[in-house]
Amino acid sequence: MKREYRVSIAVIKRLPKYYRYLGMIADKGIIRISSQELSNITGLTASQIRQDLNHFGGFGQQGYGYNVEELRGEIERIIGINKDYNAVIIGAGNIGRALAQYKKFDGLGFKIRAMFDTDERKVGTDFDGTPIYDMKNLGEFINKENVEIIIITVPAGAAQEIADTAIEAGVKGIWNFAPIDLKVPDNVVVENVHLNDSLFTLTYYINNPSDYIPR
Amino acid sequence: MKREYRVSIAVIKRLPKYYRYLGMIADKGIIRISSQELSNITGLTASQIRQDLNHFGGFGQQGYGYNVEELRGEIERIIGINKDYNAVIIGAGNIGRALAQYKKFDGLGFKIRAMFDTDERKVGTDFDGTPIYDMKNLGEFINKENVEIIIITVPAGAAQEIADTAIEAGVKGIWNFAPIDLKVPDNVVVENVHLNDSLFTLTYYINNPSDYIPR
Repeated sequence: MKREYRVSIAVIKRLPKYYRYLGMIADKGIIRISSQELSNITGLTASQIRQDLNHFGGFGQQGYGYNVEELRGEIERIIGINKDYNAVIIGAGNIGRALAQYKKFDGLGFKIRAMFDTDERKVGTDFDGTPIYDMKNLGEFINKENVEIIIITVPAGAAQEIADTAIEAGVKGIWNFAPIDLKVPDNVVVENVHLNDSLFTLTYYINNPSDYIPR
Repeated sequence: MKREYRVSIAVIKRLPKYYRYLGMIADKGIIRISSQELSNITGLTASQIRQDLNHFGGFGQQGYGYNVEELRGEIERIIGINKDYNAVIIGAGNIGRALAQYKKFDGLGFKIRAMFDTDERKVGTDFDGTPIYDMKNLGEFINKENVEIIIITVPAGAAQEIADTAIEAGVKGIWNFAPIDLKVPDNVVVENVHLNDSLFTLTYYINNPSDYIPR
């Protein structure tokens, strides 16, 4: 769908939430749902939900609501999880290994093809079925295996150089767990999971509960 | 500092970023920094930085900029990481274990006092020095040990009941990794790390790069 404007990050961040709730609703055997019912379940206003979905074509039918499976399928397509992605994990430490074992990714079309590390005790072994390769072969592997996403779980100091190598080899997206804001060219997207920042948001609100609005 | 208004989530989410950058700047031995220099480093505008800090008292001196260590200390205090928190991890699975081993938390005043699980093969053992207790003793432990934060890493279906138990026992904050929006009373704060939602944001932008604005 061609648009003359950018869809805001706030809208985009709600799409996975819709997807998650629609999955739960579908699992209960519910076929159709109104934006008002979706509002009751998600805690978002019905008008907000309609506005959000209108960015992508609407999908609802006046007076009939939404077909649950259809809407879920549309959101799946919009988010881009209806296809497969080759991914690799950089860093075979705790976070890297936890993500490698997080089997749900596979169900959603993420293929964790390999992990990369500099520790020679780990290189050449595999972890729970995922091979661990030498970091110096990262670019070559990305290039040859059409890896689209790298998941960075190394310390801050090593992350930018890895990102540069991966981008040069053709990676399109970086899921970044390193506590650093990566510099990347315009055609590469970065999604950060800054765990410390998230925990600090929690402690801020514990100490300043009057600023807190449930999200 | 008493305010007549709520500080917005956008401002609060930038505080850990300031803290992170100021740590890097201090490590380089830099004593004073102007908002313009901070702008160059963080990618935020100087006016944005001044506005953000003004919510909490300003701290800068016209024409002299900020004292790096002092500003870092102030932000540390505002975020609330200048004191200790007793925390427990719920779920001794991959994510739970990765968080238990994430030693940086300890340095910042988070004391991971225990993990809780229902798996009787895990209960009674310890993981890397952290004891694993039976889930049914969660409320009692929180109460007796003044646990302020629980970190939920169990599947979605089990998360709400655990939150209810912990809140009744006196927990103030929940760091939630379960893919569910928890229902909690007004005096309890929740910070979500929804990994799937984050990954879906990445795939959305890979498929819709024209919507992407670096953050």
